[in-house]
Amino acid sequence: MRGDTGVAGGMIRTIGIDPGSRYTGYGLMEGDGSQLRHLDNGTIRVPTRFAFPDRLKYIYDELSSVIGRFRPTDMAVEEVFFAKNVQSALRLGQARGAAMLAGVNAGLAMYEYSALQIKQAVVGYGRAGKDQIVQMIRHLCCLREAMDPNAADALAAAICHLNTRSSRARWNDSRPV
Amino acid sequence: MRGDTGVAGGMIRTIGIDPGSRYTGYGLMEGDGSQLRHLDNGTIRVPTRFAFPDRLKYIYDELSSVIGRFRPTDMAVEEVFFAKNVQSALRLGQARGAAMLAGVNAGLAMYEYSALQIKQAVVGYGRAGKDQIVQMIRHLCCLREAMDPNAADALAAAICHLNTRSSRARWNDSRPV
Repeated sequence: MRGDTGVAGGMIRTIGIDPGSRYTGYGLMEGDGSQLRHLDNGTIRVPTRFAFPDRLKYIYDELSSVIGRFRPTDMAVEEVFFAKNVQSALRLGQARGAAMLAGVNAGLAMYEYSALQIKQAVVGYGRAGKDQIVQMIRHLCCLREAMDPNAADALAAAICHLNTRSSRARWNDSRPV
Repeated sequence: MRGDTGVAGGMIRTIGIDPGSRYTGYGLMEGDGSQLRHLDNGTIRVPTRFAFPDRLKYIYDELSSVIGRFRPTDMAVEEVFFAKNVQSALRLGQARGAAMLAGVNAGLAMYEYSALQIKQAVVGYGRAGKDQIVQMIRHLCCLREAMDPNAADALAAAICHLNTRSSRARWNDSRPV
């Protein structure tokens, strides 16, 4: 167990993120290995009138503000292997870079999990569909209201991190993004 | 002509960048439309032992430090349309996002030029090769020493901006990156 949580009682407070150039989901959870508590979730919706560099700044500023408010120690991000084409991969990459930079500039420990790991941790089944993820997240977080899928994916990454808390998921040279 | 240069005599001071996840070139030039002056250039070489999020932070911190030292008002970046595959586009995108964020967080006006525009502005010929660019950059900047190609590409973007200073190159919604 990591000793630098800054949260009482061995609790780890994690922000999960699901970055995108239009919508970036985030979800805050804390847990001590046996129980999980939902703190907050939401979706950063970048105003479409913004020029692209200002969109990156918007994602960075909004996420930095959430991090400042909840002071998580860890950030969990889903690995990306797929994009429609090179152009959308570039766009997604830039948004993902801005979101990750908000975490690393705030001193968070950064973790990355595959979609398979996240689905297995949350639903117990690696091929779970979007709807199953959202339903399970609402159940685990005791949320009654409808959930934005970006925020659900972000919470799923955070829950995966708290459930597995694998040191192997910490970024290192052997796992380039 | 833009009035917010912060540099005496209508001079515009520009940083050109050529972002990459391993090497990020930068080049600083100033000009008033009739003459150009080379200020500095270099290549940020990200230590390969760094985990990926720390690489983004390294690019961001190093570029922020260069911007703090030279206080340019504008940043010029080459458009990217090509990458080997989706994975390298994602990697490049993240590095490019970190580099652009260093500019936009410092309040720089952001401009983007196509490779064709840059080659035409620097060599006068849109199909110029790498070597021709480097030779012309050394000539224009009165540099005798050998040049790193990343730094040369960054200087080329800066020179293109100072030569054309096209308001159309300023990012807007019709030109997503």
